[in-house]
Amino acid sequence: MKLWQKNTDVKKEIEQFTVGRDPEFDMQLAAFDVLGSLAHTRMLEQVGLLEKEDLEALQREMKSIYHSIVAREFGIEPGVEDIHSQVELELTRRLGEAGKKIHSGRSRNDQVLVDLKLYLRHELQQIVGEVKALFDVLQEQSERHKDKLLPGYTHLQVAMPSSFGLWFGAYAESLVDDVLLLQSAYKIADKNPLGSAAGYGSSFPLNRQMTTELLGFETMNYNVVYAQMGRGKTERVVSTAIASVAATLARMAMDLCLYMSQNFAFISLPDNLTTGSSIMPHKKNPDVFEIMRGKCNKLQALPTEISMLLINLPSGYHRELQLLKESLFPAFGELKDCLQMMAFMLPQLQVRDSIMEEEKYKYAFSVDAVNAAVLEGLPFRDAYKKVGESIEQGTFTVPASVEHTHEGSIGNLCNKEIASLMEKAIAAFHFERAEQALQALVK
Amino acid sequence: MKLWQKNTDVKKEIEQFTVGRDPEFDMQLAAFDVLGSLAHTRMLEQVGLLEKEDLEALQREMKSIYHSIVAREFGIEPGVEDIHSQVELELTRRLGEAGKKIHSGRSRNDQVLVDLKLYLRHELQQIVGEVKALFDVLQEQSERHKDKLLPGYTHLQVAMPSSFGLWFGAYAESLVDDVLLLQSAYKIADKNPLGSAAGYGSSFPLNRQMTTELLGFETMNYNVVYAQMGRGKTERVVSTAIASVAATLARMAMDLCLYMSQNFAFISLPDNLTTGSSIMPHKKNPDVFEIMRGKCNKLQALPTEISMLLINLPSGYHRELQLLKESLFPAFGELKDCLQMMAFMLPQLQVRDSIMEEEKYKYAFSVDAVNAAVLEGLPFRDAYKKVGESIEQGTFTVPASVEHTHEGSIGNLCNKEIASLMEKAIAAFHFERAEQALQALVK
Amino acid sequence: MKLWQKNTDVKKEIEQFTVGRDPEFDMQLAAFDVLGSLAHTRMLEQVGLLEKEDLEALQREMKSIYHSIVAREFGIEPGVEDIHSQVELELTRRLGEAGKKIHSGRSRNDQVLVDLKLYLRHELQQIVGEVKALFDVLQEQSERHKDKLLPGYTHLQVAMPSSFGLWFGAYAESLVDDVLLLQSAYKIADKNPLGSAAGYGSSFPLNRQMTTELLGFETMNYNVVYAQMGRGKTERVVSTAIASVAATLARMAMDLCLYMSQNFAFISLPDNLTTGSSIMPHKKNPDVFEIMRGKCNKLQALPTEISMLLINLPSGYHRELQLLKESLFPAFGELKDCLQMMAFMLPQLQVRDSIMEEEKYKYAFSVDAVNAAVLEGLPFRDAYKKVGESIEQGTFTVPASVEHTHEGSIGNLCNKEIASLMEKAIAAFHFERAEQALQALVK
Amino acid sequence: MKLWQKNTDVKKEIEQFTVGRDPEFDMQLAAFDVLGSLAHTRMLEQVGLLEKEDLEALQREMKSIYHSIVAREFGIEPGVEDIHSQVELELTRRLGEAGKKIHSGRSRNDQVLVDLKLYLRHELQQIVGEVKALFDVLQEQSERHKDKLLPGYTHLQVAMPSSFGLWFGAYAESLVDDVLLLQSAYKIADKNPLGSAAGYGSSFPLNRQMTTELLGFETMNYNVVYAQMGRGKTERVVSTAIASVAATLARMAMDLCLYMSQNFAFISLPDNLTTGSSIMPHKKNPDVFEIMRGKCNKLQALPTEISMLLINLPSGYHRELQLLKESLFPAFGELKDCLQMMAFMLPQLQVRDSIMEEEKYKYAFSVDAVNAAVLEGLPFRDAYKKVGESIEQGTFTVPASVEHTHEGSIGNLCNKEIASLMEKAIAAFHFERAEQALQALVK
Repeated sequence: MKLWQKNTDVKKEIEQFTVGRDPEFDMQLAAFDVLGSLAHTRMLEQVGLLEKEDLEALQREMKSIYHSIVAREFGIEPGVEDIHSQVELELTRRLGEAGKKIHSGRSRNDQVLVDLKLYLRHELQQIVGEVKALFDVLQEQSERHKDKLLPGYTHLQVAMPSSFGLWFGAYAESLVDDVLLLQSAYKIADKNPLGSAAGYGSSFPLNRQMTTELLGFETMNYNVVYAQMGRGKTERVVSTAIASVAATLARMAMDLCLYMSQNFAFISLPDNLTTGSSIMPHKKNPDVFEIMRGKCNKLQALPTEISMLLINLPSGYHRELQLLKESLFPAFGELKDCLQMMAFMLPQLQVRDSIMEEEKYKYAFSVDAVNAAVLEGLPFRDAYKKVGESIEQGTFTVPASVEHTHEGSIGNLCNKEIASLMEKAIAAFHFERAEQALQALVK
Repeated sequence: MKLWQKNTDVKKEIEQFTVGRDPEFDMQLAAFDVLGSLAHTRMLEQVGLLEKEDLEALQREMKSIYHSIVAREFGIEPGVEDIHSQVELELTRRLGEAGKKIHSGRSRNDQVLVDLKLYLRHELQQIVGEVKALFDVLQEQSERHKDKLLPGYTHLQVAMPSSFGLWFGAYAESLVDDVLLLQSAYKIADKNPLGSAAGYGSSFPLNRQMTTELLGFETMNYNVVYAQMGRGKTERVVSTAIASVAATLARMAMDLCLYMSQNFAFISLPDNLTTGSSIMPHKKNPDVFEIMRGKCNKLQALPTEISMLLINLPSGYHRELQLLKESLFPAFGELKDCLQMMAFMLPQLQVRDSIMEEEKYKYAFSVDAVNAAVLEGLPFRDAYKKVGESIEQGTFTVPASVEHTHEGSIGNLCNKEIASLMEKAIAAFHFERAEQALQALVK
Repeated sequence: MKLWQKNTDVKKEIEQFTVGRDPEFDMQLAAFDVLGSLAHTRMLEQVGLLEKEDLEALQREMKSIYHSIVAREFGIEPGVEDIHSQVELELTRRLGEAGKKIHSGRSRNDQVLVDLKLYLRHELQQIVGEVKALFDVLQEQSERHKDKLLPGYTHLQVAMPSSFGLWFGAYAESLVDDVLLLQSAYKIADKNPLGSAAGYGSSFPLNRQMTTELLGFETMNYNVVYAQMGRGKTERVVSTAIASVAATLARMAMDLCLYMSQNFAFISLPDNLTTGSSIMPHKKNPDVFEIMRGKCNKLQALPTEISMLLINLPSGYHRELQLLKESLFPAFGELKDCLQMMAFMLPQLQVRDSIMEEEKYKYAFSVDAVNAAVLEGLPFRDAYKKVGESIEQGTFTVPASVEHTHEGSIGNLCNKEIASLMEKAIAAFHFERAEQALQALVK
Repeated sequence: MKLWQKNTDVKKEIEQFTVGRDPEFDMQLAAFDVLGSLAHTRMLEQVGLLEKEDLEALQREMKSIYHSIVAREFGIEPGVEDIHSQVELELTRRLGEAGKKIHSGRSRNDQVLVDLKLYLRHELQQIVGEVKALFDVLQEQSERHKDKLLPGYTHLQVAMPSSFGLWFGAYAESLVDDVLLLQSAYKIADKNPLGSAAGYGSSFPLNRQMTTELLGFETMNYNVVYAQMGRGKTERVVSTAIASVAATLARMAMDLCLYMSQNFAFISLPDNLTTGSSIMPHKKNPDVFEIMRGKCNKLQALPTEISMLLINLPSGYHRELQLLKESLFPAFGELKDCLQMMAFMLPQLQVRDSIMEEEKYKYAFSVDAVNAAVLEGLPFRDAYKKVGESIEQGTFTVPASVEHTHEGSIGNLCNKEIASLMEKAIAAFHFERAEQALQALVK
């Protein structure tokens, strides 16, 4: 059954080629499709395009379908092209003619657009939740290990003393900036495209403000041509936010793989979290962090993939926009897996004590020595020269202790201030607006 | 002269290879470098690392250098590695020993970081300004041509009536969402990294809150390891915002090239804005829009280029981060050129009248015919079938007029509402904070 | 069962996260894994690391397993990590101790490397076969429609007369150059990595030349460290060849979508090969070509994805290299589908006659008019000026006929010469070497 | 002066925007432009489109211009749009009317196409030359350090003994495969597009075979529409070959940066080849290798940039193809610099002796111990278990010596065989054909 089926047969191969994996991904849109229709039909009735009794019957049955979907008891039947057709088919089975009426005043184009916006809003909220959970773990580890020093590197050369407090805390703060990008993505997703029909609007007297409010959108994509242009653009922006979180994870995973190498040996994992080798009996490999690095580096290619699909397409709908689903949808799952796995692994890391006592890290204290001389009155360049000479002559000695006190330094991590930044960033999403609206729709 | 020059010579080839085009790009950072030092020295004096009289002399001379830079009377001398060295050299020439003192409590790493943040903030403000100017032009054209219909396409097939009001207005609204991405980029740039030194902080009792306020930053990059991680990450985020604006322009340019083709002939340009051919005397080519499309499509590769530079680098500074300048800096100029050129060209477009009267666009009115039948009481699917049959039998007739009234449709463009969204988006940048702070510094 | 399983348990979540979809993709390697082992064990026996009777038993059972795989009667059991473990497990069930002996003198690293090379060689041969089939279709269509003119465009402006003979033939010739890239990819894949063990070779006296010959490789990856480096690099090169074929298809699909638009109407498809619209009863959409364009544009992002996985990984094996399978393996299927679908669709295209008689294409003949004047003795620049003036004054007339006779022009398509180039390109693969060797192994 | 200049003025801003940096890059095409015209005019005379005396005059003056270009005494005058116009202008100054005749039978489109092909052929030959020079250095270092062991890593964990002989040799062999990609790129570039005019051929009786031979092309781009399609495609393929060489260099640079870290300390550089720090007096940074890594990672984004410019452009010339020059041309210089710098640096590397004697590398010998037990008759899995237990119990002892003898292993590097592969790969370019033809043209 296809909504547009005419009297000629479309070759099976064609259908397989064009429909592809769409039904699989459409199941992720199912609940949102019904939510969209719940709002759409209430609006149709309000503007006089639907009888009151039809509305009531439709609302009742759509809520019932919604709950089947949530309970994972609803699927797309073989031969049914997409979720939109499946829901309409089911309604027609239950209500006859009335079931067909939900499609008035919209096209599949704005129907899928609104489904996608609702889906993206939901997934972004999930991601923010997982990011926050990892953020908390990172801050805990930062506090827990704040007194453990490790060498800080520049050019991969031992440079200055750093600490695990700083190192864990840095990745926490990185997530704050990633949340700012997620925020842009959310704001762009949080605009109602419903009513744009096939991208050119409708001769029906739709009330788009009403569906905007019913679906809890912050505002709408006013211009109907732009609403359609949002397909692809929204996905691209969301993918750059995903890529940014992924970049934070990937970089941390790279550090972890390096620090677990025998040449650093800063950290280790309990045996049951490493894997072995088929020929080397001594190996304890950090496979989790390698796989995470790989998954997250792949996610960084996602914006490119999406851009390549979109570049130079003239305005208006094109069928291949459907392929965006198979690029973007799995990325949410991948990223959530990585966020959860990182949050699971980090508390189990064993951090080595007394790393900085090794001879090879001695010169990491040279800047502190220069600064001490400056604080005693020597001009900086002269102090720099003096310490440099003591190093060349082998007379350099390590200062008794590291005392860094300014904001964000070893002795003053400012984790609370960073937590405030995160809270402020998350508050700006106003997730509650969407949540309350959608709950009201299915009540 | 290099700050770190020791007694051995660094081979000339090495220097050429590693320094590359850095001095050229550093000149774009020059004013910001001095601004950073103006704030840094005031802080040094406040925490007791600089004598009051040294501060006064340094402030006086640095303001003088700042004004030379603004007047384009300051350059990097041959043999001087970067702008930081050049400024210090000049100060030492004028003030002797005191000139050397500006480098206390910081490293070139946080110095360049703060220069970059100030530069990016500035450039993003410029971009937002140009985006707003083009937005205004697009909205004007939307209003001017709001009654001119053109066919709307889906699948590149004639689908429904659209209008030049919608088409221009859609690209205006697209810029609103682009500004939301620019906002994230700005927020991420608007955090003070000064005081993070080489990425591991300092044993000096720096007051980072003070420089944060003096430089008009919204807040600081607290964690010093994260402050260093911001190098590359900030550039990446900024590049995705640039790419998003570019994508809007490129798509519009593609439409324009198509619409200027004889096969569409929707628009034309006065002769003096087209170019000809060396062998075809009849040609009037839309070269401006083609070059714009190309430049903007290239800009969409910038995030990939930056990501490829960063992927799998462990935390800590690496020398190649310097190459980010030659990737990112020219992009601002390219984008500004394209924004200005688009704003210059659009008002000169000649839009053809009565496009929709051509026979080939007749069926674009089929949905309106379906809807009219629905409004007269026919169920949608039946109305769809009926109109479909009239088309197959050749009896379809075009409705008398197009009456689309809902929000964002042909008859109700909502340009004012879209303008409100843009104003709200721009207000959220709070450009005035940075502007006022920097003016106070050089007063 | 894991080859490296020690006494501690690896957490289930870890395993799920790290193993991921590997077993699914490993089934595509199954036959090649056995082929590799058939060669490896013959070599082990030859150098004295395996008893003759063990060899005979192993060969017998492995051939039996090979045939089960080909008959799709072999699978990876739940809990078995990969295809290598499954085959060894099955052999041990059948032969006891002897089954374990196939792993002497190799590591999973070179085992998967050789599997991949055999797999890639096979898939590339398939792709070349499909490319050739489409090439033949394109040449047939070129000959069939060689007299049908269409306008040639530059800058999307009508420029000069072209023909469907030229247009179809151009894409055929494009495939010839794509095959040259496939050839490089094949040559790089056609080198034996077996014997490189974990990337550092082995203290066993292996005979790598023997396995090279048995597996029909052109030569070997000599240096064992380089053999391991080939992981990722080979996939990257193969992906660029895939992307190149995809680019040819995508561009043709874009032309087709444009030419099917009512604004060009150069070609059409029978109704049963188009799709309709849920709200626009008149639509006949070229979905196949849009989906093809989308799939092929996505494939062009594959080299980026692979590069992002690899960039800045130090030499030596890393676990995430496994993720290359899920990037690359599905691409072969996607590309083959697209090649086959294009070959299926093209012969059904209906090409419109007499396109060039439309008024709007009149000036496409201006160059021919200029040339005619030149052939009559006018200097080129003067002829150009004269025709230009006749156009501006509206007195330009279309020449009676188009007579282009040089190589590769409308009247002299050189399809035979292009077919020769293709044959020569394909002959250089020497597919027969690999085919004969592998057949001999399982005889 | 523009070839197509009509009576209306093209606005200056437009010209600046569309011409951009083209004249700068065109100077790199200058010599090739004249070579193309030398061949084109000889062909024109042969087919009767040019008088013999005109040909002689043109040949004489063009050879003179060619030599000025080679001597860097020829430039593009302000206001002249491109190199093609400049050469024609100069000829017209010297020869009057005859100068204009070189443009018969071609368009700027095929003129620039042939210039580009000649340029790319030339640059690819240069790259191959530099690759070969580095290859030789790598093989020399491989032989020089063949007895120095270092740990081989998998998962960044110490795995097995490797050697500097293997490590240097691996990168040499990597270049062999890169040359195979360069070969494809060269073959695709080595086809004559001249005679395709604006992409649709010509009504002149051109002899394209003659120019193919005169310019030393292997064959021609027969189909004129395909010849034009080669613009962009050729650049893309060339860029993937460049990216592949760059990937080899970048990976080696990453290894080098790691190995120079105090945590590995496998290698060091003389002081005069490192740089220092502005605040850390002890630093000796491997800036050259970091910058090289960065430059080469950026080069890996080039194919993406080029693809993004091309994707979804319909067939036929588009003006933005000109922008390919500013993407691709500088890449040749960047890559040559990196190749030369690597060849300059490597012989100066100081390789540390006795690395493997450190305790932390002890278990790298575990596989050799397993193998030794196998060679004494133990089944592999039992030997693996036994050695594993000795490691867990702390009783593992390092074998007396490393004896790897098979092809490509520590004791049998096969550098000669690898050198043969390289020679064979280079011989297949047949550079001499092009060289001899071009020399004959300017004689």
